[in-house]
Amino acid sequence: MQKQVDYSDAVKTKYPEQVVIAIAKDKNGKANPITLGWTMIVSGTPPMMAIAVASTHYSIECIRYSKCFTIAFPSAEMADAALFFGSKTGRDFDKLANSDCKTEPAKEIDSVLLTDAVANFECTLESQTTAGDHIIFVGKVVAVHTNTEPKRRLYSIATGHKLGPAS
Amino acid sequence: MQKQVDYSDAVKTKYPEQVVIAIAKDKNGKANPITLGWTMIVSGTPPMMAIAVASTHYSIECIRYSKCFTIAFPSAEMADAALFFGSKTGRDFDKLANSDCKTEPAKEIDSVLLTDAVANFECTLESQTTAGDHIIFVGKVVAVHTNTEPKRRLYSIATGHKLGPAS
Repeated sequence: MQKQVDYSDAVKTKYPEQVVIAIAKDKNGKANPITLGWTMIVSGTPPMMAIAVASTHYSIECIRYSKCFTIAFPSAEMADAALFFGSKTGRDFDKLANSDCKTEPAKEIDSVLLTDAVANFECTLESQTTAGDHIIFVGKVVAVHTNTEPKRRLYSIATGHKLGPAS
Repeated sequence: MQKQVDYSDAVKTKYPEQVVIAIAKDKNGKANPITLGWTMIVSGTPPMMAIAVASTHYSIECIRYSKCFTIAFPSAEMADAALFFGSKTGRDFDKLANSDCKTEPAKEIDSVLLTDAVANFECTLESQTTAGDHIIFVGKVVAVHTNTEPKRRLYSIATGHKLGPAS
């Protein structure tokens, strides 16, 4: 039976929710990672993926400047890094340099990959749409990488930014 | 270590992926449900959610006609209905009438809720953007309902439309 409730209560039923780390370079060449739970695939042919980023976040400037971004699926072991990237701003701070996350250059875009991630999707910016307090960026996937070791993906599993594997 | 691969291989790392059932009425008043794995929240204030629907699907016409839609989080017990709604077209067929899914009228929009779902989000159409072979519909959440019984959400857990709880 359904009962009408507040949105804030209902949204607690969303877990587990996938987590990605989106990375784009700013005008100084600094690769800036941000952890996001609001992401989806949006096209099969050609492959495209979307992320929703809060309008106030520094990543907005970075993506608009470089017109490309990486979407990394962090592994379950990367919970600390994901929390760190999601709680700091990169405006005056180098998040990657201050973490123990290994990176490597992307192949087709001017960005980086996360070496220990489950997978990295290199995207060129295809469109951007304002939706309330966020911007939806759609990226066309132009190169893809996966980890040579089997890894479990990281999820947001409960309120309060609790992260872990989905099961 | 990362290794460059085909997109079709990398995308297999996405599981579990959330599943929703989006419902919109067509011009004849028939509520047409479609099962989707490509969905995300896109705004906190006001709350908004997005879905990506294949351009060829009948749901495109329904959402454009009624300018509103329900996003239901099916429960783990609703796997058969979700598969049914995801594999049939509603163009000349009443999917809800031919399923055992109970429905009830939505409160704020001209659509229906799924009585046994984990939650139902009533959305008014806010924007639509073409992304490759899909259309991204953004809806503003105007009313929300949850199940009075605790229910586990349904996920896509492996290739070949394998559905089940996330853990």
